[in-house]
Amino acid sequence: EIVAAVEKLLSPSGALSGKHALVTAGPTHEPIDPVRYIANRSSGKQGYAIARAAADAGARVTLVSGPVDLPDPPGVNVVRVESAREMLAAVEKALPADIGIFAAAVADWRVAHAGEQKIKKIGDASSALSLIENPDILATLSHRKEGRPPLMVGFAAETEKVIENAQQKLLRKGCDLIVANDVSTATGVMGGDQNTVHLVSAAGVETWPTLSKTEVARKLVERLSDLAGAMPS
Amino acid sequence: EIVAAVEKLLSPSGALSGKHALVTAGPTHEPIDPVRYIANRSSGKQGYAIARAAADAGARVTLVSGPVDLPDPPGVNVVRVESAREMLAAVEKALPADIGIFAAAVADWRVAHAGEQKIKKIGDASSALSLIENPDILATLSHRKEGRPPLMVGFAAETEKVIENAQQKLLRKGCDLIVANDVSTATGVMGGDQNTVHLVSAAGVETWPTLSKTEVARKLVERLSDLAGAMPS
Repeated sequence: EIVAAVEKLLSPSGALSGKHALVTAGPTHEPIDPVRYIANRSSGKQGYAIARAAADAGARVTLVSGPVDLPDPPGVNVVRVESAREMLAAVEKALPADIGIFAAAVADWRVAHAGEQKIKKIGDASSALSLIENPDILATLSHRKEGRPPLMVGFAAETEKVIENAQQKLLRKGCDLIVANDVSTATGVMGGDQNTVHLVSAAGVETWPTLSKTEVARKLVERLSDLAGAMPS
Repeated sequence: EIVAAVEKLLSPSGALSGKHALVTAGPTHEPIDPVRYIANRSSGKQGYAIARAAADAGARVTLVSGPVDLPDPPGVNVVRVESAREMLAAVEKALPADIGIFAAAVADWRVAHAGEQKIKKIGDASSALSLIENPDILATLSHRKEGRPPLMVGFAAETEKVIENAQQKLLRKGCDLIVANDVSTATGVMGGDQNTVHLVSAAGVETWPTLSKTEVARKLVERLSDLAGAMPS
């Protein structure tokens, strides 16, 4: 026991060694025509910080990233995509994984028929903007019969009823943990360096103080390491 | 004459000294709700290169820029905006100007009623995406009775019938020159470092070879310096 404790102190970063962590980050871009698209304000900072923290904890990390302006975290395998459908394909290709952390702000909808030429008229634009549902990456993976990562973590970016929406999302998506945050413009979370999160699971709700996104990532990876420690490698 | 030629060789960069050049660059972002928006693939590189070239030529330069990931060009007064309406307001505030160069890819439309809360349902999103026309910055300034910059340059980003569309745009907008280019995905112009442009004016069409965006900027500023040389300061 003493040896184990000393080993943990000497190598606190090995808690996820031997594990494969699959992380998504950033927005998705959904094309309207060759030049226009629907986007969202996710900067990717929180997901990139998590990928880095997981790598620091010894995990092999695959980071599937939407379009962001961030450098690849060192030691992380980065796969860059644009749309939700490309993100789902890249995530499925990266399986199997021990932990799935889905921090990307995936567009819920895409344009039904993206134009092959630049749209010139407002009438054509209005009809071009008929929407269809995108695949739900978190729910798709959480509900897989085979190859479901044993620990599935989703994110909920809300602007109202943050915890209530996150609790509903936990049930609807079938994941093990939701990291919920308030992304109202006034909070400055989207694009900013700080985050105030609530961990929502079947066990209850835990609210963390406002921390840097790096600290949120480190604490989250610590928590996931504890949970993953009970899992077979 | 010899002295003038030597002066020009020694200070080829003074051709626009005493002039105020107003340049726009980048995309605009049109909000759908607090987290989602409509964007376009303009990187701002061509407009930033033009602002820099105009400053190198001795002009006082105001650069009104949409959201891009480019550093401020040295010696240029940069005003950052998000939406088309913010861009128009910033442009009008920067008047008077001797030359207006409108390289921004301004969104033609915006969402009629951007949501104050994050939209949860696809039905709500579809109705949220009813579009209305944005102000036309180039046409608004070109048709001003007072305070019209004497030399107005527009850009036309097309994916088909490039020159024909640019010629129509020249007439419709009331500007003096259109710089037209093909932004089909295959050309790699949007976001890339090269550009193949056509100069379309009442005098005719001039097609330049494929050049770096820096070279296009330098050649364009040279051409505008010649035209502006005939204007009173």
